Amino acid sequence: MIFDVLTLFPEMIENYCGFSIMKRAIDGGIVTINAINPRDFTLNKHKKVDDTPYGGGAGMVLMPQPYVDAYESIKQCDNTVTVMLSPQGEPLNDNIVNDLAKYDQMILLCGHYEGFDERIREIIKPREISLGDFVLTGGELPALCLIDAVSRKLDGTLGKIESAAEDSFSNGLLEYPHYTKPRVYRGLKVPEVLLNGNHKDINEFRLEKSVERTKTKRPDLYKKWVENK
Amino acid sequence: MIFDVLTLFPEMIENYCGFSIMKRAIDGGIVTINAINPRDFTLNKHKKVDDTPYGGGAGMVLMPQPYVDAYESIKQCDNTVTVMLSPQGEPLNDNIVNDLAKYDQMILLCGHYEGFDERIREIIKPREISLGDFVLTGGELPALCLIDAVSRKLDGTLGKIESAAEDSFSNGLLEYPHYTKPRVYRGLKVPEVLLNGNHKDINEFRLEKSVERTKTKRPDLYKKWVENK
Repeated sequence: MIFDVLTLFPEMIENYCGFSIMKRAIDGGIVTINAINPRDFTLNKHKKVDDTPYGGGAGMVLMPQPYVDAYESIKQCDNTVTVMLSPQGEPLNDNIVNDLAKYDQMILLCGHYEGFDERIREIIKPREISLGDFVLTGGELPALCLIDAVSRKLDGTLGKIESAAEDSFSNGLLEYPHYTKPRVYRGLKVPEVLLNGNHKDINEFRLEKSVERTKTKRPDLYKKWVENK
Repeated sequence: MIFDVLTLFPEMIENYCGFSIMKRAIDGGIVTINAINPRDFTLNKHKKVDDTPYGGGAGMVLMPQPYVDAYESIKQCDNTVTVMLSPQGEPLNDNIVNDLAKYDQMILLCGHYEGFDERIREIIKPREISLGDFVLTGGELPALCLIDAVSRKLDGTLGKIESAAEDSFSNGLLEYPHYTKPRVYRGLKVPEVLLNGNHKDINEFRLEKSVERTKTKRPDLYKKWVENK
């Protein structure tokens, strides 16, 4: 998948993608990341990309010209989705991630400081996605979250050893507790059932813990799980 | 505020904090960011921090010893909160951000790959926070979101020009549309009311647009806003 990210801070995107799973996905040719800076598309001599809001108020607003021109410079394929990261969008969840993973190209529009001139929305007509009901300085972190979450779903990003199928939410429940070495740490023991090699017992224990945890921590998810059972 | 971040990828944290508002907050002495790598605390000679899960299954699990020792190496003040980033936590929102902004120190526990040995939770007893119902490769992006969102609320991080008070959610509504130069772009005009300098009219227009937008895009928020009016 190709991710084209419009951002005033291309280094934020490039730095994160130089590590861990993202680096592996890029090195393996599964994803390509292009960071495009609207500042390179300004037609004014000061390379200005924002200005004060009409009607007054705090903050600077991203001007339409550099942003729309930068967007239009991107070569789109037949199966492209454009996403604007904004607190006004639909809150991201695992279903949306699965849906977005079906595209071949994703163009991500990051704001920074106060926000986009409304005409950028009107012209580009992006799908708007939010990370949740809180405010960040820019769309760069949400864009990276989306890139990371979507890349995990693509064939080949995770090795056999990782597998996204056992992650939280993939069966509608929170994940069961994990234990590794040592068997006893500061007096706390790994549950006996995990050591006896009986896979039926292990699966039952894990499902029970998943259900218990979801019921306590996220009654909303538990209710949905019971309804869909 | 001091942010101490436990992570296997300290560069991910440091890189992001070298730009924009975070850089300014650090340079201004408003926040301090320390990234601590549990790998520096392993007692085994291969500097191993994870191992396979007891009971079988995909992924690697973070071992308790390096993580707990790294945590205990941090000097805590009287007003410290410890937060584990995990899909199992309470979903982050603006109220939680406001609550967390009252602390003087925040210790952030980032997992990576499969997750934490359950005994890390049992010993440290952190507050668990989730970015939403989707899965990421590590806790680093959620930690950065939390650091960014909380830092914005601290006195002095935002200049007068930015002000968090007009952000989305601060009044329970999504933000109104913004417009900046030029007055006409590709035939699309800035609404007349924003140009006439009548502040009463401008405020009414913006509130109306905020309400309209919230009602359409986030009926759940709109319902709450009406109830609290």
